[in-house]
Amino acid sequence: MLTKMESEQRIARLQQELKAKGIDGALFIYPIDVYYFSGTRQNSTLWIPAQGSPRLFARKSYLRARGESLIEDTRPFPSGKEFPGNFGAEVKRIGFTFDVAPVQQYNYYAKLLPGRDFVDISSINREIRSVKSAWEVGKLKSSGARLCDVFRAVPEFLKEGMREVDLSAEFEYRLRKAGGEGYVRMRAFNQELFQGLAVSSATAGNPGFFDGAVTGEGMSSASPHGASAAQIGADTPVLIDYTGVFNGYIVDMTRIFVIGKLAPELEHAFATALAIQQYLVDNLKPGAVCEELFLKAAEMAEAAGLAQNFMGAPGENARFVGHGVGLELDEFPVLAQGFKVALQVGQTIAIEPKFVLPGHGVIGIENTFAVSSRGGVKITDLPDDIVYL
Amino acid sequence: MLTKMESEQRIARLQQELKAKGIDGALFIYPIDVYYFSGTRQNSTLWIPAQGSPRLFARKSYLRARGESLIEDTRPFPSGKEFPGNFGAEVKRIGFTFDVAPVQQYNYYAKLLPGRDFVDISSINREIRSVKSAWEVGKLKSSGARLCDVFRAVPEFLKEGMREVDLSAEFEYRLRKAGGEGYVRMRAFNQELFQGLAVSSATAGNPGFFDGAVTGEGMSSASPHGASAAQIGADTPVLIDYTGVFNGYIVDMTRIFVIGKLAPELEHAFATALAIQQYLVDNLKPGAVCEELFLKAAEMAEAAGLAQNFMGAPGENARFVGHGVGLELDEFPVLAQGFKVALQVGQTIAIEPKFVLPGHGVIGIENTFAVSSRGGVKITDLPDDIVYL
Repeated sequence: MLTKMESEQRIARLQQELKAKGIDGALFIYPIDVYYFSGTRQNSTLWIPAQGSPRLFARKSYLRARGESLIEDTRPFPSGKEFPGNFGAEVKRIGFTFDVAPVQQYNYYAKLLPGRDFVDISSINREIRSVKSAWEVGKLKSSGARLCDVFRAVPEFLKEGMREVDLSAEFEYRLRKAGGEGYVRMRAFNQELFQGLAVSSATAGNPGFFDGAVTGEGMSSASPHGASAAQIGADTPVLIDYTGVFNGYIVDMTRIFVIGKLAPELEHAFATALAIQQYLVDNLKPGAVCEELFLKAAEMAEAAGLAQNFMGAPGENARFVGHGVGLELDEFPVLAQGFKVALQVGQTIAIEPKFVLPGHGVIGIENTFAVSSRGGVKITDLPDDIVYL
Repeated sequence: MLTKMESEQRIARLQQELKAKGIDGALFIYPIDVYYFSGTRQNSTLWIPAQGSPRLFARKSYLRARGESLIEDTRPFPSGKEFPGNFGAEVKRIGFTFDVAPVQQYNYYAKLLPGRDFVDISSINREIRSVKSAWEVGKLKSSGARLCDVFRAVPEFLKEGMREVDLSAEFEYRLRKAGGEGYVRMRAFNQELFQGLAVSSATAGNPGFFDGAVTGEGMSSASPHGASAAQIGADTPVLIDYTGVFNGYIVDMTRIFVIGKLAPELEHAFATALAIQQYLVDNLKPGAVCEELFLKAAEMAEAAGLAQNFMGAPGENARFVGHGVGLELDEFPVLAQGFKVALQVGQTIAIEPKFVLPGHGVIGIENTFAVSSRGGVKITDLPDDIVYL
C-alpha cells in the first residue's frame, strides 16, 4: 500500500517539472502511471495540475479506487458533458504520455478538451519514476530477498534431461508460492515478458524480438521467448534470468547453473562478465554518465576477445548493459549507447553483462543495484558464483 | 507454426475489406496483428496493400523473422530515408490500428509518410480476426484439451486452508508443465491478466478494474486482480477461472469446486448460470444478434431473482455475458449491450454467466464455444458440474 507521503512527494516532483516546462498539468490514463501517483491501479484518469490539488476520475471500480486512492478528490468518471468543467480556462497545455497512450485514447481526450495543446511528457514521467525514494528501495529489497530465495532453491529441482519449460514451471511455482504477482509490466510498445527465461539448449543464444541479450526459443512462434521444450543437458550453462514482482516492484536477476563442468571459453566469458559488473558497481554513483558506463563495459568485453559475443549473438548485439527497474521492467535510466545522462542517487538498475557463444551457450550475470554515493548497493543479495551440480 | 494458406487467406480477406472501404493498404505495427497475417511476432512492421503483395520490415530479429515469416518479401527495416520509397504515389489512405498504436508510433509513421491520410482500421482488423478458420478452431480445441486436463486434476491439489495464491500456484504449475505459454494477450488499453483467477474468500466478489464479472483481490493494490493470500474455507464456492495459451491460441473456462456443501442460494444461482449457458449455446448460430443474446441472458437472471447479482457485485454489474477469444483474450464479438452485430460461423466465444452473492460467494460457469449452424460447439470439453470434495 502506497503511503500518503510518498504520493505527495511524487506529485510535488511532477508539479515542479511541469512548471519548469510551462505545462499547465498532466493527464494520466496509463494504469501504472495512475498507480504511481495515486496508489490505485483501478481503471481511472488522473489530473495533476501544475499548481493545486490533483483529481482522480475512476471508471471501474470507483468503489475500490475510493478505498485505495490517496488523492483526496477521488470521484466517479463524469459524463462527457461534465468532464471539461474540471479544467479551468488557465489550462492551455496538457501533458500526456504519448509513449503509451493509443491514438484512440488521445483522440477521445483531445475531443473532450478542445482548444488545448496536448504535449508529450513521456520523458518527464519516466525520469521522475526512475529515482526511487528510500521507501521504494525498501520495497525493491523485499522483492529481491524473495526472488533470491527461489534462486537458492534451484539445486533442489534442476535435473539433467528435464525440459527448459519444466525448469521454468518449477521456478515459477516457487515464485508464486512466495507471493509473486506474476504479471511483469513493460513500457516499450512491442515488448512482452512472461516472468523470465530458463534457457540452456543450443537455441538459448537464438536472436529474438526481446530487447535484451537473451530471448530464448519459447514454446511457439506466437510466443517466441523464454523456455522451450528442449532438454537440459550436462556440461552446458543453464541460464536462469527471472523477475520477481511483489507489491508491484520488479527486480531482475540472472544466475548460471551447470550440471557437470564448463568449457574454458565459457569460464573465461563468465569471469569477464563478473569483472564488467564489478567495474559498473564501483562506478554506479551520481554523476556517472550512462553511455560512458556502457562503452567501458563494451571495451572490457573487447579486451577479453569477446566483442562479437557481448550482449547478443554475433551480429545481433544489443548496445546496452543495464536498465532501470521499478514498477516496470524497462524503466529509466538505460546503460546504453546514446544515453548521455548522469546517474542520480536512488535510481535502481539491473546490470546484466552477458555473452552468447554460438555452439557453447549463453553465460553471464545480472543483479539489481541502487545508485549511491559509494557505488551500487546490491538489491538481489545472493552470491554471483556459478552453481555446479 | 502458421501455414502459408492460412496467411494468404487472411491477407485476402483484409484486402477485400480495404478495397471495399477505399483504403489503399494497412500498416500493422502491433506484434499480434503482425503475427496473425505473417506468422512471425518478431519486432516488425507489415505493409499489406489493398492490391498486390505484402512486405514485412523486420527490426529485431530480422534473422528470426526471415525464418518464421510467410511473407515472401521479408526484409530488414529500412532507414528512415529509404522507408517512404516502399509506398507508391497511389497510396493515399493508410489503415492503422488506432486502438493499440501509441501516439509516438503514429507520429513516427505519419512523419515518415507525409501527405498520406491515416485512417482507423481497428474494427476491420478485429472483425476479420474474430472469424476463425477450421485450422484455428483446431488450435483452440487443442488449447482447450490441455486446459481441461489441468481442471481435471484440481481435486488432487485443492485443500481446505490453503491460500488462494497456493491454489493458483498449483494450477499454473500444471498449466506450464503442459506447455502453456503463460503470457495472456489482451487488447483493451487498460486491461491486464496474469493467467486467471482462483478465488473463494469473502473478497472474491470485490469489484475491480477487470472487465469481467469477477476480479478478485490480488496480492496488492499494485496488482489488484486474481488470487489473494486469503485462506480457502469449506462450504464456499471456489471459483477457478483460467486461460490456457498454446501456440498463441487462448481458451477461457471456469469451474466451481466446493470442499463440503453449498447454501441453496448458491445452488440456485449455479443452476441459473447453467440454464443461461444452455440457452446461449442453443442460439450460438450465424445470424443471432449479440446484444439480443445478452439481453435474454439478463432476462433469465432477472426471472430467477438474480438481476442484482448477474455479472458482478450489486451496483457494479458488467453488461455482457460472453467475449470472443483467439490470439487475444478480448476479441470480437462481445455478447454485450450495444453490440448489435450478428454472429458468424467460426467465431469463438467464451460464455460466462456468473453471479456475485455478497456474503455467500461467487458462482457460475464458463466455456469456450465455436459458433456453428447447429449452435455452439464446445471447445473446453469437460463436464460443467460443480465438483464437491
